[in-house]
Amino acid sequence: MHVNGTHYRTVWLGTEPGTVRIIDQRKLPFAFEIEDLRSVDEVATAIRDMHVRGAGCIGATAGYGMYLAALEASAGGDFDEIVNRRAVQLIATRPTAVNLRWAVDRQLAAMSGTSWAGEKLDIAESTARAIADEDAEACRAIGEHGLEIIRNLHAAKAEGEPVNILTHCNAGWLAFVDHGSATSPIYAAHAAGIPVHVWVDETRPRNQGARLTAWELGQEGVPHTVIADNVGGHLMQHGRVDLVITGTDRTTWTGDVANKIGTYLKALAARDNQVPFYVALPSSTFDWEIENGVRQIPIEERGGEEVSHLSGFHDESGEEREVRLTPDGSVTANFAFDVTPARLVTGLITERGICEASGNSVRRMYPERFE
Amino acid sequence: MHVNGTHYRTVWLGTEPGTVRIIDQRKLPFAFEIEDLRSVDEVATAIRDMHVRGAGCIGATAGYGMYLAALEASAGGDFDEIVNRRAVQLIATRPTAVNLRWAVDRQLAAMSGTSWAGEKLDIAESTARAIADEDAEACRAIGEHGLEIIRNLHAAKAEGEPVNILTHCNAGWLAFVDHGSATSPIYAAHAAGIPVHVWVDETRPRNQGARLTAWELGQEGVPHTVIADNVGGHLMQHGRVDLVITGTDRTTWTGDVANKIGTYLKALAARDNQVPFYVALPSSTFDWEIENGVRQIPIEERGGEEVSHLSGFHDESGEEREVRLTPDGSVTANFAFDVTPARLVTGLITERGICEASGNSVRRMYPERFE
Repeated sequence: MHVNGTHYRTVWLGTEPGTVRIIDQRKLPFAFEIEDLRSVDEVATAIRDMHVRGAGCIGATAGYGMYLAALEASAGGDFDEIVNRRAVQLIATRPTAVNLRWAVDRQLAAMSGTSWAGEKLDIAESTARAIADEDAEACRAIGEHGLEIIRNLHAAKAEGEPVNILTHCNAGWLAFVDHGSATSPIYAAHAAGIPVHVWVDETRPRNQGARLTAWELGQEGVPHTVIADNVGGHLMQHGRVDLVITGTDRTTWTGDVANKIGTYLKALAARDNQVPFYVALPSSTFDWEIENGVRQIPIEERGGEEVSHLSGFHDESGEEREVRLTPDGSVTANFAFDVTPARLVTGLITERGICEASGNSVRRMYPERFE
Repeated sequence: MHVNGTHYRTVWLGTEPGTVRIIDQRKLPFAFEIEDLRSVDEVATAIRDMHVRGAGCIGATAGYGMYLAALEASAGGDFDEIVNRRAVQLIATRPTAVNLRWAVDRQLAAMSGTSWAGEKLDIAESTARAIADEDAEACRAIGEHGLEIIRNLHAAKAEGEPVNILTHCNAGWLAFVDHGSATSPIYAAHAAGIPVHVWVDETRPRNQGARLTAWELGQEGVPHTVIADNVGGHLMQHGRVDLVITGTDRTTWTGDVANKIGTYLKALAARDNQVPFYVALPSSTFDWEIENGVRQIPIEERGGEEVSHLSGFHDESGEEREVRLTPDGSVTANFAFDVTPARLVTGLITERGICEASGNSVRRMYPERFE
């Protein structure tokens, strides 16, 4: 998508050989900086310290990291020993991110097809590009399928009225290679000339909505309004939300959706007010093993300082500053995700099309997974 | 309740004649400062600029303000002209606060019973004290009634397990003269030796939970944990909330509850997980005219800068600092309240006892209002 009018992906190969370029997402929206990564160590640091974040983006960055590993190995030494060691290093950076391990394993399998180092290097480069391209293409396809939902809602609106879409957290292009999952149908509708307006949940405690989603939408010129996470129910009661679309961090094959904490509350409000609630995901986000999301998906509990302290832009000094929000001595707790049961989900928007959030419907969409 | 072990109300008469003392709530929890108000102008500023806030606290402060008006009038001039002018001034400070007008009108009516200035002054002082005492007594009674709910929940718990109570915003003693509404049963249970633990919603955008409720509970030694507003649903799904109690800014006689934005989302989650959801209120908060809360209660929309900017304590400088959370150019919206329909409310805890959130039940509790 676009930044200051120029097209960017979240991660790509630089023209200088052996250079992986990323957008440093830690500094958004207050500074836009591109970082060059020239070694596996630098890639590992970028993933671990969240210069890049989001399932698809982490996977693609790790794919490029394995290309840098192959480049290092082809300079001398035991090729396989070096890439295997680097693979272990990359996988260890974010042990829970499923796309990370998947991308690294795919690189190892691809390189194992030949014993010639020069060919392994070519394969590593083309596989890294393929992983990124496939992520971008899956997200583009999600946009095409989701566009039809927005088009139908627009057809039912009064002339000139925008379709009001609420989203939570950042399932935007910054979380993938391009387009995003939840935001992809929104960008597709905007590009197709359908008027849309997005209610952006700020998404406490890390404020990915206020920081990243608002910035993305602003750069694409999509009208949007940032709101506190408390507001969505009130807006739905008063007919000011036509559609909710969120992303997901893990979805059971039965349709239960683990996503950023607070998603469940919006799904309840959508059901109470007959607002359609869709979840957008590339199929890499499905968990094909687990049946009951609320009982079986482990929920990460992060440090309480993300709740007690908050970083924002201090206009006077022109720098980010961290301030404390709670009294000395008050304990804080920080659950990162919650699970929205399938019964509250209107449908899943995948790269193959839209299906119901149910085992039967997911099975019909991905029959090869159930053979 | 207690601050550093000493008992305080939110507003009281100083020993020095003609001095009204308040806790300056703007600076909590980072500084505890008492302010002396010596004129109606100073009282008006304190109410308008939110040195004091919360329905009961504003009403009591205005009552004391009218005593200062009577003191001014008894120094010379046309007594009635002066107190009437001061009454208009006080009512104009927060035009939507129902307790403010009620307290000022009660003072004017009380003083109209005599034509002797000295007697009017005595009446104004005793009426101001009565308004504050009655507010404190109503909140104390709410605590006694709500205590029974907590006692019953505790009886069903395993030995030594606390009763986990979730609350939203600040309906604590700082919002009244003493005890509070939603917090009063919690303080009563704590005093009765029943182990309680409170989940404190931080309550974006103004963070009254993280700032005021957490501070109040900490000063009383009540175990509590501050959480993002997004978390309550997840906690309820996992059996970690036994009871929700909130306050209310306006309650229809049919049981619909207007309270701080986000209350409706917690009520939905409570219903979805069979967690009892109670609303605590002195009967002064009932609206005896309105039947449909969602359709008829106007919702205040405040400045968007309360969402885009946030003030917290900057440890390095030892001062409060304001930081910006959103990108330049992103619009924000700020709805202050939402309405929870009566169907989601388990019961209303009033100074007369507990009733269902329904017109029939409220009518039986307050028959004189329906004559």
